[in-house]
Amino acid sequence: MLLSELETPAVTIRLDRLENNIARAQAQLDKVGMANRPHVKTHKIPAVAKLQMAAGAVGLTCQKLGEAEVFINAGAADDILITFNIVGEAKREHLMALSRRIGRLAVVLDNETVARGLSETARRHDSDVRFLIECDTGMGRNGVQTPEEAFGLAQLAMNLPRMRFEGLMTFPNAFPRTAEFFERTLRLFRDAGIPVPVVSGGGSPAINTVDRFPMMTEHRAGTYVYNDVMQVASGAANWDDCAMHIRLTVVSRPTPDRAILDAGSKVLTSDQYFVKDYGRVVEYPEAHIVALSEEHATVDLSLANGRPEVGEIVNVIPNHCCVVSNMVDEVYGVRDGAVETVWPVAARGKVR
Amino acid sequence: MLLSELETPAVTIRLDRLENNIARAQAQLDKVGMANRPHVKTHKIPAVAKLQMAAGAVGLTCQKLGEAEVFINAGAADDILITFNIVGEAKREHLMALSRRIGRLAVVLDNETVARGLSETARRHDSDVRFLIECDTGMGRNGVQTPEEAFGLAQLAMNLPRMRFEGLMTFPNAFPRTAEFFERTLRLFRDAGIPVPVVSGGGSPAINTVDRFPMMTEHRAGTYVYNDVMQVASGAANWDDCAMHIRLTVVSRPTPDRAILDAGSKVLTSDQYFVKDYGRVVEYPEAHIVALSEEHATVDLSLANGRPEVGEIVNVIPNHCCVVSNMVDEVYGVRDGAVETVWPVAARGKVR
Repeated sequence: MLLSELETPAVTIRLDRLENNIARAQAQLDKVGMANRPHVKTHKIPAVAKLQMAAGAVGLTCQKLGEAEVFINAGAADDILITFNIVGEAKREHLMALSRRIGRLAVVLDNETVARGLSETARRHDSDVRFLIECDTGMGRNGVQTPEEAFGLAQLAMNLPRMRFEGLMTFPNAFPRTAEFFERTLRLFRDAGIPVPVVSGGGSPAINTVDRFPMMTEHRAGTYVYNDVMQVASGAANWDDCAMHIRLTVVSRPTPDRAILDAGSKVLTSDQYFVKDYGRVVEYPEAHIVALSEEHATVDLSLANGRPEVGEIVNVIPNHCCVVSNMVDEVYGVRDGAVETVWPVAARGKVR
Repeated sequence: MLLSELETPAVTIRLDRLENNIARAQAQLDKVGMANRPHVKTHKIPAVAKLQMAAGAVGLTCQKLGEAEVFINAGAADDILITFNIVGEAKREHLMALSRRIGRLAVVLDNETVARGLSETARRHDSDVRFLIECDTGMGRNGVQTPEEAFGLAQLAMNLPRMRFEGLMTFPNAFPRTAEFFERTLRLFRDAGIPVPVVSGGGSPAINTVDRFPMMTEHRAGTYVYNDVMQVASGAANWDDCAMHIRLTVVSRPTPDRAILDAGSKVLTSDQYFVKDYGRVVEYPEAHIVALSEEHATVDLSLANGRPEVGEIVNVIPNHCCVVSNMVDEVYGVRDGAVETVWPVAARGKVR
């Protein structure tokens, strides 16, 4: 199918850019000898994970059990880290079932309740749980708050039956705070003679600064695979690195300076972070997407170098590609004006 | 299944509240003799539409053709209005195919390009297109800008082959601007001797003020069926009217004043509008959901009347229920502590 025949709204992936993004990140991590464990949350597509693995990734990162299950079912990797506290008996049973199916399935934890729950279930299954301690090194989300807490929780958990301590994890790498936190934490383990095989950092912008974190053994990044307005705004990518383009139609031109596109927050999402608009119109970069309804994007053309007509197709680079993937059942891999492949977003909506 | 057995995250619908919301809106519109044409975008579930129809709705509103198709397939209504400009040959063909399947399928339009396209396709199919003129009566989105433009476009379109003018449409009702716009527009049609059978207004908060718009013949509202933080903040609903509760688990308590819940923007969405937080925690109303990641909600407990433990279940009323429906494959209808029904969100992701 020709790209020009693709009905809108459609989430398209420029395959050349996708391949370049995968190769570049792998090369950057290879250069410093750091293992690459890409986060699948951005694409939720086993075929894309397989491209990442083929390029040299050691394994995958998933955020939820349901997400991991999709990638295990697809045979995408034999080594998966789930970067989420597993709480509740049903989820622990799910973890045990999944962990039997691949070589290594590890989780993170940041509190004693999670550690004890995992240990009890693991003991009943006569099976081990591999775990990393999640550390809050500045984000203010999950994670133990101090190196001493990390050390204390690791000791508590590794002394519970069937619990196998594998290391430390944080998100995202922040300099110098993350480096200082991990240096102090690693000293505590070294002084106690406890090996820490894995130190796992993350973040797409952080790929460019992995050399500042020599204690890290692996890096987890998601967004880099597609890139988006946020990545460009943070200096981590250029517009030409943005592989996800949302193909839209101008459906209304109610005033000389206003255009309405045929998708809103139910495709683009209302994620803004530190960005002002709701996405960048590739063909009219001086236009501003100033508002989203659920199925409409309102574009202010007053500064734009042209005025699209009703029926014209435009491409929008979203603010945040990871949430867009979660809105659609399939994305279209395009190259040289043709739709080369249609990828079901197999892990879309897998929030458990 | 008991509600207490339902895995998190889960989008639950309190059926008593849903039924009350449907009955109350119908009674309010019945009282002023205005037809009720609920918008399915909020729930995207044929079974809920059937409850709305059984309560007295005359038909349904859909935003996209794909959405309408789901409700037609389910036999939910014989009369559907699609409140979106239909652009492009493929979509026009889709419209023709759908319109043959029910008694009345109408669309809106706000420009000549859309009118001419519809007419050409309709002529080829030897079939009529029923249309309303979309008017921008203050929202600044789609719609003709003046009464004169509405009259002019209606005349142009109704003189095209196979185009059947049925009336005027706007969103949302705003007082007094919408009333003034429609009074002036209707005068133009009256003076020309052209009947305007349908005048269609919309908006959930506007259900409470339909008596201010005596020229309206029907009302389209979506959010009222579930309600949400925005509806409460706008004074259109109380907390006890909020039927959608997102069932979540506390997975981390990294500090005395911070809790992390097991869903983020991939369930709650980042919609904020004029609201400060990212949802209301029912059990801890003084807590504040201050940040969302994709799979985490960060809760500030500093003002809360209690401190939930890891593993505790909480319910969150979302800021905007319509976008939450679009995130999940199914919702759970609950009553008296039991899961009474599981509804697939059949039109989820139908953005074309």
